[in-house]
Amino acid sequence: MEIDRIGIVGLGLIGGSIGLDLQQKGYEVYGLVNKTKTAERARERGLAHSISTNSNIISNCSMVILAMPLEQLLNPTSDLVDALPKNAVITDVGSVKKPILEVWKELHPRFIGSHPMAGTIQTGVEAGQINLFKNRPWVATPEESADKEALEAVHQLAMTLESQWITTNSETHDQAVALISHLPVFISAALLHTVIKEPNKALLKLAKTIASSGFEDTTRVGGGNPDLGVAMASNNTSAVLNAIRSYRSSLDKLEKIIQAKAWPQLKNELSENQLSRPDFL
Amino acid sequence: MEIDRIGIVGLGLIGGSIGLDLQQKGYEVYGLVNKTKTAERARERGLAHSISTNSNIISNCSMVILAMPLEQLLNPTSDLVDALPKNAVITDVGSVKKPILEVWKELHPRFIGSHPMAGTIQTGVEAGQINLFKNRPWVATPEESADKEALEAVHQLAMTLESQWITTNSETHDQAVALISHLPVFISAALLHTVIKEPNKALLKLAKTIASSGFEDTTRVGGGNPDLGVAMASNNTSAVLNAIRSYRSSLDKLEKIIQAKAWPQLKNELSENQLSRPDFL
Repeated sequence: MEIDRIGIVGLGLIGGSIGLDLQQKGYEVYGLVNKTKTAERARERGLAHSISTNSNIISNCSMVILAMPLEQLLNPTSDLVDALPKNAVITDVGSVKKPILEVWKELHPRFIGSHPMAGTIQTGVEAGQINLFKNRPWVATPEESADKEALEAVHQLAMTLESQWITTNSETHDQAVALISHLPVFISAALLHTVIKEPNKALLKLAKTIASSGFEDTTRVGGGNPDLGVAMASNNTSAVLNAIRSYRSSLDKLEKIIQAKAWPQLKNELSENQLSRPDFL
Repeated sequence: MEIDRIGIVGLGLIGGSIGLDLQQKGYEVYGLVNKTKTAERARERGLAHSISTNSNIISNCSMVILAMPLEQLLNPTSDLVDALPKNAVITDVGSVKKPILEVWKELHPRFIGSHPMAGTIQTGVEAGQINLFKNRPWVATPEESADKEALEAVHQLAMTLESQWITTNSETHDQAVALISHLPVFISAALLHTVIKEPNKALLKLAKTIASSGFEDTTRVGGGNPDLGVAMASNNTSAVLNAIRSYRSSLDKLEKIIQAKAWPQLKNELSENQLSRPDFL
């Protein structure tokens, strides 16, 4: 099938960046946003050829990319759902896949779940930038019953954006994201909590003075945007809880080694960590 | 008392950096090292005015700074102890203070425990650099019975190096270091361990592909030098175990909040983290 007219719902970091890239690659891009003010600014920034707050803007598209915040993706308005052409390929960019698939497989026959893994700390209509997805993973999570032509169209989209194409199932995706992205937030948050709740005031004061780069790095994601942490936990709850349970076993193991003063064993564990970490960078 | 001739035992990152700074500030600096080859290289680098492997080199010093590795500091040779002038002020640069104080208060009447909090990842005779201590904390841990003149001399040393002078007791120091510097290593190591031991191979493979800056930052100290981690745990065992216990309570609390799907409470906790973190940077 030929994809020529592409709709993007939401022109924040992800949607806006896709819009900029697709225009440069020769596609016709139609943007749907919620607010008049956002539409104005998105037009000034040239995030799509045509931008509107009226959902009719996407009615002639052969592909629509849902790039709204997760909450809106999980609770789409009927106005949006009704505006999606029945023959179009629909994909999303949400950071959890199973709950989204459960909602959207009932709403559209050609929905393919996607998660382009690119981000900066910027958000909103000012955030979109060229080449955000280049060489970054684009994970799609088609079910067995997925429309093969629709899947191929999303694959082509990822290739057009020069992403690294990966397919997996939605459970594996959500568990991997829980381990790699969500778990670090909560273990880092627990570290900050431990230190800021230290009851010995002299110790707390000294801790503030002597904290350096190790503490800074290890607490960065746990001291970040609270809404992001809540979204991770509330939208990927069971995978996050599994990851925390698995993490606690690892921490218990290290604690037992230290209690036993089993220093050669501690060195082995830490050496294995040191050797394995580069595989993740 | 006048401090003019300063001995430094060990010319690695800390000792070598002190040697460079003190010479520039007009002090006479005498270096004692273990190996002939280290002495040669230290002379080439100009880390002290006079450098030897013979402990007599420090016998006329009015201050001696013990800048050896922690293991040597905790188990000093009798040759070194005998060479220390009885009237000199003795201080160290070790990263834990209580075990060092216990050893050294028996060995020299004018010993003052110190921990200049400056570091880079470099070690050894090539590592010393100018201005390493400038604007960095210099924590001293005098006991009530400490020689006041000796303490003042170490204070002057820290001021000469343009450090930020802090005094506390050795227990508070070791607990603060456990919380801020050692605990992050072990919670970060447990995160790496959790991920690399993931039994689902497809999930592990995907995790490796999608890991990004959050995972990288949070695992940096846990994937570092294993010997450093072992030294932290073995030399500060009880404070590290206390910190891990306290950390587990914080993690349990977060887990319970997520289990209860108490999202407003989770947002409060994460918001408190976000607000408090800048106090440590």
